[in-house]
Amino acid sequence: MQRLALAALCCAVVAPAQNLMPLPAKMAPGSGRLVIDGGFRVAISGDAHALVRATAARTIARLARQTGMQVGGEIGRDWKAATLVLDCKGPATENTADESYILEVTPKQAVLAASNFVGLARGVETFLQLIEPYGEAYAAPAIRIEDQPRFPWRGLLIDSARHFLPVENVKRTLDGMAAVKLNVLHWHLTDDQGFRVESHVFPKLHQLGSDGLYYTQAEIRDIIRYAWERGIRVMPEFEMPGHITSWFVGYPELASGPGPYQLMRGWGIFDPALDPTRDENYDFLQKLIFEMASLFTDPYFHIGGDEVNGKQWDQNEKIQEYKRQNGLKDNQDLQAAFNKRVQQILAQNRKKMVGWDEILHPDLPKDIVVQSWRGQKSLGAAARQGFQGLLSAGWYLDHMLPASVHYEVDPLSKEAGEMDAQAAAKVLGGEACMWAEFISPEMLDSRVWPRTAAIAERLWSPREVRDVASMYRRLEAVSRWLEFLGLTHRSSLCSMLERLAGTHEIGPLMTLAEVVEPVRFYQRGQSRQYTQQTPLNRLIDAARPESDTAREFGELVGAFLRDRQAHAAEIRARLVRWQDNDAALAPLIASAAALKEVAPVSRDLTTLAAAGLEAMDFLSGKRAPQGWIEKQKAQVEAARKPKAEVLVQVAPAVEKLVEAVGRIR
Amino acid sequence: MQRLALAALCCAVVAPAQNLMPLPAKMAPGSGRLVIDGGFRVAISGDAHALVRATAARTIARLARQTGMQVGGEIGRDWKAATLVLDCKGPATENTADESYILEVTPKQAVLAASNFVGLARGVETFLQLIEPYGEAYAAPAIRIEDQPRFPWRGLLIDSARHFLPVENVKRTLDGMAAVKLNVLHWHLTDDQGFRVESHVFPKLHQLGSDGLYYTQAEIRDIIRYAWERGIRVMPEFEMPGHITSWFVGYPELASGPGPYQLMRGWGIFDPALDPTRDENYDFLQKLIFEMASLFTDPYFHIGGDEVNGKQWDQNEKIQEYKRQNGLKDNQDLQAAFNKRVQQILAQNRKKMVGWDEILHPDLPKDIVVQSWRGQKSLGAAARQGFQGLLSAGWYLDHMLPASVHYEVDPLSKEAGEMDAQAAAKVLGGEACMWAEFISPEMLDSRVWPRTAAIAERLWSPREVRDVASMYRRLEAVSRWLEFLGLTHRSSLCSMLERLAGTHEIGPLMTLAEVVEPVRFYQRGQSRQYTQQTPLNRLIDAARPESDTAREFGELVGAFLRDRQAHAAEIRARLVRWQDNDAALAPLIASAAALKEVAPVSRDLTTLAAAGLEAMDFLSGKRAPQGWIEKQKAQVEAARKPKAEVLVQVAPAVEKLVEAVGRIR
Repeated sequence: MQRLALAALCCAVVAPAQNLMPLPAKMAPGSGRLVIDGGFRVAISGDAHALVRATAARTIARLARQTGMQVGGEIGRDWKAATLVLDCKGPATENTADESYILEVTPKQAVLAASNFVGLARGVETFLQLIEPYGEAYAAPAIRIEDQPRFPWRGLLIDSARHFLPVENVKRTLDGMAAVKLNVLHWHLTDDQGFRVESHVFPKLHQLGSDGLYYTQAEIRDIIRYAWERGIRVMPEFEMPGHITSWFVGYPELASGPGPYQLMRGWGIFDPALDPTRDENYDFLQKLIFEMASLFTDPYFHIGGDEVNGKQWDQNEKIQEYKRQNGLKDNQDLQAAFNKRVQQILAQNRKKMVGWDEILHPDLPKDIVVQSWRGQKSLGAAARQGFQGLLSAGWYLDHMLPASVHYEVDPLSKEAGEMDAQAAAKVLGGEACMWAEFISPEMLDSRVWPRTAAIAERLWSPREVRDVASMYRRLEAVSRWLEFLGLTHRSSLCSMLERLAGTHEIGPLMTLAEVVEPVRFYQRGQSRQYTQQTPLNRLIDAARPESDTAREFGELVGAFLRDRQAHAAEIRARLVRWQDNDAALAPLIASAAALKEVAPVSRDLTTLAAAGLEAMDFLSGKRAPQGWIEKQKAQVEAARKPKAEVLVQVAPAVEKLVEAVGRIR
Repeated sequence: MQRLALAALCCAVVAPAQNLMPLPAKMAPGSGRLVIDGGFRVAISGDAHALVRATAARTIARLARQTGMQVGGEIGRDWKAATLVLDCKGPATENTADESYILEVTPKQAVLAASNFVGLARGVETFLQLIEPYGEAYAAPAIRIEDQPRFPWRGLLIDSARHFLPVENVKRTLDGMAAVKLNVLHWHLTDDQGFRVESHVFPKLHQLGSDGLYYTQAEIRDIIRYAWERGIRVMPEFEMPGHITSWFVGYPELASGPGPYQLMRGWGIFDPALDPTRDENYDFLQKLIFEMASLFTDPYFHIGGDEVNGKQWDQNEKIQEYKRQNGLKDNQDLQAAFNKRVQQILAQNRKKMVGWDEILHPDLPKDIVVQSWRGQKSLGAAARQGFQGLLSAGWYLDHMLPASVHYEVDPLSKEAGEMDAQAAAKVLGGEACMWAEFISPEMLDSRVWPRTAAIAERLWSPREVRDVASMYRRLEAVSRWLEFLGLTHRSSLCSMLERLAGTHEIGPLMTLAEVVEPVRFYQRGQSRQYTQQTPLNRLIDAARPESDTAREFGELVGAFLRDRQAHAAEIRARLVRWQDNDAALAPLIASAAALKEVAPVSRDLTTLAAAGLEAMDFLSGKRAPQGWIEKQKAQVEAARKPKAEVLVQVAPAVEKLVEAVGRIR
């Protein structure tokens, strides 16, 4: 694979099989191609269970959508006449943990074989990714692929608590997940800001804890079915004992401090925590978990468990007394005792407990799963103690990092790197996390995609698949392909800029938006006050987490600095456009209050472009005047500071040009 | 209204209420504005029927989507605390024919009152159209609107027979229809190329007549419910006795000629026709209509009836004999006799018959509806004879005409213009028709929207609302707004061009795509062979029916020619970009087989731009050389000829520039 990927970088014509993401475990190219036209037909061989038929129907609909051809919806049993044969070796519901498949494409037919419908669901995505235009129709190259995942748990967390995500967004997310072979939707459903599940047992949870924005149980069942048709498990997270204020609005008696409580509207770590010493609270949890355990059919149940600051516990004399009586030396011990009782309730409901880092404690049984958000250290520690683990540190999508950073993260690296096979096997995989403090439904796709595809490859493909240039090339292809699922990660930029621009043309605003990125990590909100009700409709919300334009510009500049002949004209053309952009954008900025904050960002781009153009002159022979370098460096430095909470990401490349001038003199 | 619209054109700041489309019957601006932020709440006053509650919930979701704000989903009964009050005066299901509403927005509150949920559904669209950015939040201007439609029947035909449209597309179309206050979905479900409805009574209709691409009865019920929640009726069309080959694949005995039959794959008028002399055929229709009449709950039932060429009848000796025995002088008489028996079956099922022009016959009862596709003449004739009528001539969206052409069409004009009030009242309204020979699901939106909004205004707004410039200005706003419904009429261009461009940047291809339009009327397919299975993924499919860029360029050139000072720089800038575009596009064209046909189109654009730039030089003082005009005229003439089935629509404006040079000399 690596050999093939590297080969592709060296030649102009990219072989179609090179658009696959995640890259399969084994591929062997054949000769010729299978033509795919309006006569495309699917047949099912082996077990034609409803889930296999649903996979076939989805494949047909997807093919029609990605090619623009009307494709017959019939699914036959006639092997011979079919373009694609789905061969389900075993009963569709048996051994779904086996996600392997074999796909053999010849000029006559494609045959996809798997032991169950999940393997087929994985394989059809590979098949669809193979298809490329061929004359007036389409074709898949002849190839043999044997594939299976490196890790069995490849998840994405979505957070419906901080901002509610309508059902259609959840389904679209599941479409995208299936396309890149992720298999666990981790659904963060409750937090200080909202309780998003209808409860028949304790109806004040959703009635008073959600502003009316919650999922009915029917909607949840529909989503679970939708996910399972795509071979995706849905694991719910009910945060406890912290991140729980929304529960207390309807049931203040659960809390460790006096009520009444209101929904939290801001972001951060709050004091309210469940009282772990009150027996009635365990009765409450018993009943609630019983209800939710039958609604959510997955064997795993996430209890959160992170970021309990202990303040309410410390201020509650009864709880302090309880700690003393039970020999619990600190709040960590108190939380561990709580977790143990919750784990017992879960076990009665045949659920395995999952929780964040903080739940790791030797008293808990070994079948729990620890999800590491603070680094590989706790993951390694958990695995060595015999606990199962998941990595999420390094995969927080809300940190607004480029795909390359996420791509380099590996569950079995750093402190989890040096382990024997038995311990390593305890690392089940990992999850990308899309925390939603700054996510509205229209932005969800552009925050999740395409970056999550790079993480999906890390979790699916062999460890040795690490070439970043190959990843970016394939990510571009997969990103375009994902839009045919109805995802809006590319198109939402347009409609969000149009909202900002009112009746003006968005051209110059697009030029700016394409080179900025939101500030990273937890920088957002440092300079402004945000609540759940703050509109998310500014440039930072429209901007993509990773600017392809800026990254490509950086690559051009890098190549130019290695070899002064390369790309000079292309670099200049871009810089000229950016230099002129502020003048083009100014009338638009003047017309809309929401764009006022963008003015200094736009000026920064023009300043950077001017500096870059001067640097290009000096690098091609003109002599830079005295003090030019120092002045430009100071300007670049100033332009690197975030404004309107966005970064102009062409700054690093311009800085390199300026520094290169310095090296000449 | 007209006065307001014209006033808006004269001043730079456009008042927000000017984005309304269709324009309401009466508006009176107030002073101040109602601020809309995250605290937005809806209350229902009067009858809080489920359909009223659904209207409220939809309004909340739409507001969240169009503003990017999280808005609480609770719907209260507390008038005082609400931002928007929905006041349903009567029981929600009573008198739904009354679509009128009164919307009063003050700085304190918006109150929308109607006699039933349909009026509310119309009014909330007006309310949502009023909302515009205001500082960091949003606001609606204070205003009082009293509104009701000019015509009671405002429809859109979609054709699922020629190309199947998945359920999600139908629902999206209904969203768009509701947004511009259309109230009838005319669903063309059967034709020579497909029978798209599941039939339990005659299952071979969908099993053998649809390639597996049909709607289940559950899906149809779901769509009807979805439509009715939006105050939209769904009228099915089952074409008979012609356009019916798909029925004969499973039931060849229905036909007038010997079988067996296959689904038609091409387009046009075909010979197969139902045998109107065979008694068993009426038994068949009796049973089928009984089944479909209970599935489709609308009181109207469309039987098609157009384009029967009579060849099978003429070749069938038994049918000829029948005509002689029954004194039927020609095939028109035979079809009229057939229609009469079908009408009786429909009447037994409490359905009123609707059919195309050709069904008009004095023997039929007066409660039938004649849909005129050939012009106002038959509409006028029908109305004068006391039949009800609908206009569709002039509103065929597949003819690829600009919105202005559709906008000028009026049901009560031409031969239907001079009628007394009683006859005029027989004209119920009209329908835009989206025939789907060249429609795939991904293109549907861009073929229907935004042009259909202009037709919707013609059918809703007072007759005097006719200003084309105002229409285009508002159409632009409504087009952007419609994308927040999930419609893809703007974004699909991007993804379709990306498919054509493979891994290349689409910039130059977009520049070309933005100035071309598909060929008009029935010109498509004259130079190529099309079938149902031909991929619809070429430039013509991606191109929008009306090029805004070309239209705006034409307006700039018009203004320039009236006053040589105006817009010269802007015109030149555009021409320069187009002149350079062929060089930029060439590598892309060379790389993809599907783009080969685009090469001459691209060259035409460059040629036209060069001619335009030279003309600008000569118009500003330089002297044109001998023979220049003749040569340019010939070039423009050549460039006006369609290539790759598209038209470069900047040609007319360039021609005007060239001709203006001629007038100088």
